[in-house]
Amino acid sequence: MQTVELIKQKRDGGELSAAEIEWLVQGFTRGDIPEYQFSALLMSIVWRGMNARETADLTLAMARSGEQLEVRRSLSPAVDKHSTGGVGDKVTLAVAPLVAACGLPVAKMTGRGLGHTGGTVDKLESISNFRAALTRAEFWSILRAHQLVLSAQSNELAPADGKMYALRDVTGTVDSIPLIASSVMSKKLAIGASHLLLDVKVGSGAFMKTLPDAETLARTMVAIGARAGVHTVAVISAMDQPLGQAVGNALELKEAINILQGKGPADVTALCHHEAATLLEMTGLAANSAEAEARVRQAISSGAALEKLAAVVAAQDGDALQVTDPSLLPTAPVQIPLPSPRAGYIAGIDAERVGLATMKLGAGRFKKGDPIDHATGLLLYRKIGDQVEAGQPLLEIHARCEDQAQAIQTELLSTYHWSDAPVSPGPLIYSQIVPEG
Amino acid sequence: MQTVELIKQKRDGGELSAAEIEWLVQGFTRGDIPEYQFSALLMSIVWRGMNARETADLTLAMARSGEQLEVRRSLSPAVDKHSTGGVGDKVTLAVAPLVAACGLPVAKMTGRGLGHTGGTVDKLESISNFRAALTRAEFWSILRAHQLVLSAQSNELAPADGKMYALRDVTGTVDSIPLIASSVMSKKLAIGASHLLLDVKVGSGAFMKTLPDAETLARTMVAIGARAGVHTVAVISAMDQPLGQAVGNALELKEAINILQGKGPADVTALCHHEAATLLEMTGLAANSAEAEARVRQAISSGAALEKLAAVVAAQDGDALQVTDPSLLPTAPVQIPLPSPRAGYIAGIDAERVGLATMKLGAGRFKKGDPIDHATGLLLYRKIGDQVEAGQPLLEIHARCEDQAQAIQTELLSTYHWSDAPVSPGPLIYSQIVPEG
Repeated sequence: MQTVELIKQKRDGGELSAAEIEWLVQGFTRGDIPEYQFSALLMSIVWRGMNARETADLTLAMARSGEQLEVRRSLSPAVDKHSTGGVGDKVTLAVAPLVAACGLPVAKMTGRGLGHTGGTVDKLESISNFRAALTRAEFWSILRAHQLVLSAQSNELAPADGKMYALRDVTGTVDSIPLIASSVMSKKLAIGASHLLLDVKVGSGAFMKTLPDAETLARTMVAIGARAGVHTVAVISAMDQPLGQAVGNALELKEAINILQGKGPADVTALCHHEAATLLEMTGLAANSAEAEARVRQAISSGAALEKLAAVVAAQDGDALQVTDPSLLPTAPVQIPLPSPRAGYIAGIDAERVGLATMKLGAGRFKKGDPIDHATGLLLYRKIGDQVEAGQPLLEIHARCEDQAQAIQTELLSTYHWSDAPVSPGPLIYSQIVPEG
Repeated sequence: MQTVELIKQKRDGGELSAAEIEWLVQGFTRGDIPEYQFSALLMSIVWRGMNARETADLTLAMARSGEQLEVRRSLSPAVDKHSTGGVGDKVTLAVAPLVAACGLPVAKMTGRGLGHTGGTVDKLESISNFRAALTRAEFWSILRAHQLVLSAQSNELAPADGKMYALRDVTGTVDSIPLIASSVMSKKLAIGASHLLLDVKVGSGAFMKTLPDAETLARTMVAIGARAGVHTVAVISAMDQPLGQAVGNALELKEAINILQGKGPADVTALCHHEAATLLEMTGLAANSAEAEARVRQAISSGAALEKLAAVVAAQDGDALQVTDPSLLPTAPVQIPLPSPRAGYIAGIDAERVGLATMKLGAGRFKKGDPIDHATGLLLYRKIGDQVEAGQPLLEIHARCEDQAQAIQTELLSTYHWSDAPVSPGPLIYSQIVPEG
């Protein structure tokens, strides 16, 4: 095969066969195909797209580019859960122990935050001594002992994805549904759970800004899962405003613990219950949604879900006392309320810009490798639809010092949109995408 | 400026400003912009195209990437002539001395052949000791002394083009009108003649296979010339069958000499006269086409055109006797006729495949740097529209040995298409593209 001929084939709107895609992906990963050819191929894919068969073949080739855990060969069912990322999205932190407490093994590998969206590993590292970098032996033994492991993403899984993403990032080839879908799914296929729940975020704070785009991405990923033999379902959920109240690492972990204690904010609690119940239904652990939701509520009220999180944190060398008593988690030295500049109804809170403002408090990374401050962040007391009087606190800023807290107030206030008339918030869950046929 | 942002701009169908294009081209030429980003940009250009302003700015930026001769500052008018390449295309070899003999300075830099199309430098190098690699001082002194110089393309002119072409060649980004047009025109603008005649070939043996594509390319190049202040006209001429009788280096040079002696084949002679006359008219050296054509005929009948070629060959260290007596040029040891396998009218001779067959005789290059045999090639006795009896010679093969000559006979015969009814050949010149407005 000749790389340039395959580039021309895709450039001219043709299809690439499974063997051609395999050859391209493995050749690029090994370094046999130079980056200047692969970037031209990527731009051709951005231009011409890929059909469902090509997209699945690309994803499988990427998954095969490194180690494959094939979790479902050892534990079945074994579930995995992925969010496309948002602001205040602590759902994984609550859902994983919730379903594990219901007896469903969860093999979770998760990443660090970059830009305005946070990462689950960063949030967990708010706990003293918590260790996300596990050996493969530790991964398996913790998963087997606790039906849950909360590991950092391994570089040995789907190395093609890391190499391709780095190239896409600098060549304007990120924005392509087949490339986004294959990037997410290649890592999931390399883990190899039997069931996968995707949370595709849509809105100002999400990568997908419109519902049609989010649905297309969700359908593409669900179809990849189906072709790869992984039962995949996608929930499309709102990311117009931050999810829940907390934005920031320890603050979000605390909120996740609150959810596991049955006292989380309504919106994020509802989403966590829905996702956990969906996983129980998908795997047949619950016969229907009523039974699934009852089991979820039971795992919370019995304390089993919180105990599960504490046990896994302890297994990963973290201080489990900080889970059962989250007041022991790091707190920011300065905590000041931001009063509302006006009376009215909140019509919008720009999630992306809230995320960017939170980064300036040290809670996020501008570039890979930046250190982060686990204690800083925001607590949003008022959300879309709430009526506020002038001077009432809109939110609380958790900062390193007074100056830092003062410096972002104007920026934070500018993320709010107001209405004089009552506003009803949009739906939290737009739709659910299940495999076709 | 950020390269990735400019790639996205073009990817999304936006325009690049003159400053952005300049920054990209100079950055890439210097090596500051990596190839993997530039190839993604090139694919975006293949996808989205470029408007006339962007295409001219790209060409000017490429022309500015190296030395600029600005010939028209020293000699005005000074003309240049370029063919997009074909099989049997020896027009430059005749037209350049023809117009120089009429008093019009011709600053010609020309390239080597690659693939099925020949190169003017290769044809000239059939002459013993002819030297196309000239110092800049030699270039100027020969041009001033003889109103003609036949130099090899300088690597110092438009180095961006060479670097871009090498990348386009391996990334599937050759086929793009703005990129093809800017590649040709950047070298012409770096030479900087006052008037430029383009011969855009169309047909099976040309890079442009269809008339609409050829006309689009011609219009694009003429528009670039207009924006750069170079009076540019394009002739669109047929390359369905090889031009004239001769294909091969010394054979084509002999045919060019025949044209200058007034005894060339009708088709290629007509095209040479037309192009030479067009240059005389464009520059005002002739008031109208009748006067221009009379001057061309006079330059031939007086012997002035042939003398001009001989004088320049001598100035470039070549054996001028081989010009005045072309029987002294190298000849192939084996010259055998290929008899027609049937009676009928010739309906087509696939020029590209004739060119490829001639390469196998050693007359062309499969890859850059391959040595070539100046003596080998073909003489086509019969062309489209000719009536042939079975057994009559179709063509003559000039080869190194009998085996080589035998080996390509079947391939050559398969390039002919036949008709039982009379066939009228298509036009040699389709149209002429002049600047708009």
